[in-house]
Amino acid sequence: MTQASDTPLSTIFPLGAEGRYRRRIAVAELKSFTDLTGDDDPIHWDEAFCRTTPYGRPIAQAILLLGYLSAASVRLTAVSGVPVVSLGYDRIRFITAVFAGEEIDARFTVTGHDEAKRRVFGAAELRVGDRLAVAAQHILQRVG
Amino acid sequence: MTQASDTPLSTIFPLGAEGRYRRRIAVAELKSFTDLTGDDDPIHWDEAFCRTTPYGRPIAQAILLLGYLSAASVRLTAVSGVPVVSLGYDRIRFITAVFAGEEIDARFTVTGHDEAKRRVFGAAELRVGDRLAVAAQHILQRVG
Repeated sequence: MTQASDTPLSTIFPLGAEGRYRRRIAVAELKSFTDLTGDDDPIHWDEAFCRTTPYGRPIAQAILLLGYLSAASVRLTAVSGVPVVSLGYDRIRFITAVFAGEEIDARFTVTGHDEAKRRVFGAAELRVGDRLAVAAQHILQRVG
Repeated sequence: MTQASDTPLSTIFPLGAEGRYRRRIAVAELKSFTDLTGDDDPIHWDEAFCRTTPYGRPIAQAILLLGYLSAASVRLTAVSGVPVVSLGYDRIRFITAVFAGEEIDARFTVTGHDEAKRRVFGAAELRVGDRLAVAAQHILQRVG
């Protein structure tokens, strides 16, 4: 499916439309993420160090959680027929830690549009069970 | 080095203090990042698809760029003697695309403190040469 460049974004991405991504975090993935990004903070992989912190055990990288939220938004945009990229975020809060072994549930929900600037606004929320771990205001930009 | 819990954050992280991280992005890393996060948007790895977009070639995931900026902040915090986590961001903008093969220069610079809430504010900027690709306002939280 392709969309003409003059199709309103509110037609392609209606208010309330949702993309969702779920995944269980493997311990080894936290170390792989460390290697890919260069963020080698031991709080993500060094269990001895983690026992000296209030968390007690390795926590998932906040940026990895944003990656899962990107995956959720892509579940919506990939079937839209228009190329879209991430323009940015207006606010992100990492509310509670997420640990290896936990299963995350990431959702992107359309909350608004700027047709002139070809932008889509969305609420990005990541939960573990009923626990809200990440809340963000995400902005997508149509590029073609 | 450890720091007493009542040492002011402005002493541990003075205004203007900087963490820096540089890296050349390998093509294979974009695919690995896709696998780790689940963000399988073909704009990051499918060269045929990318030729149909204004970019013409695969672009690095915006979230991967944030990972490099985390690495920059960790270059500063890891030697501080206090455990610090990312509380969030107040604004992030992905200004220009970054492509595989390019060398990024990520910096985190301390811009302020909230001693009561034990927070450190920083400007996070990622450049490719003179080109500003990402600008963000990052908030760190002391947790121990």
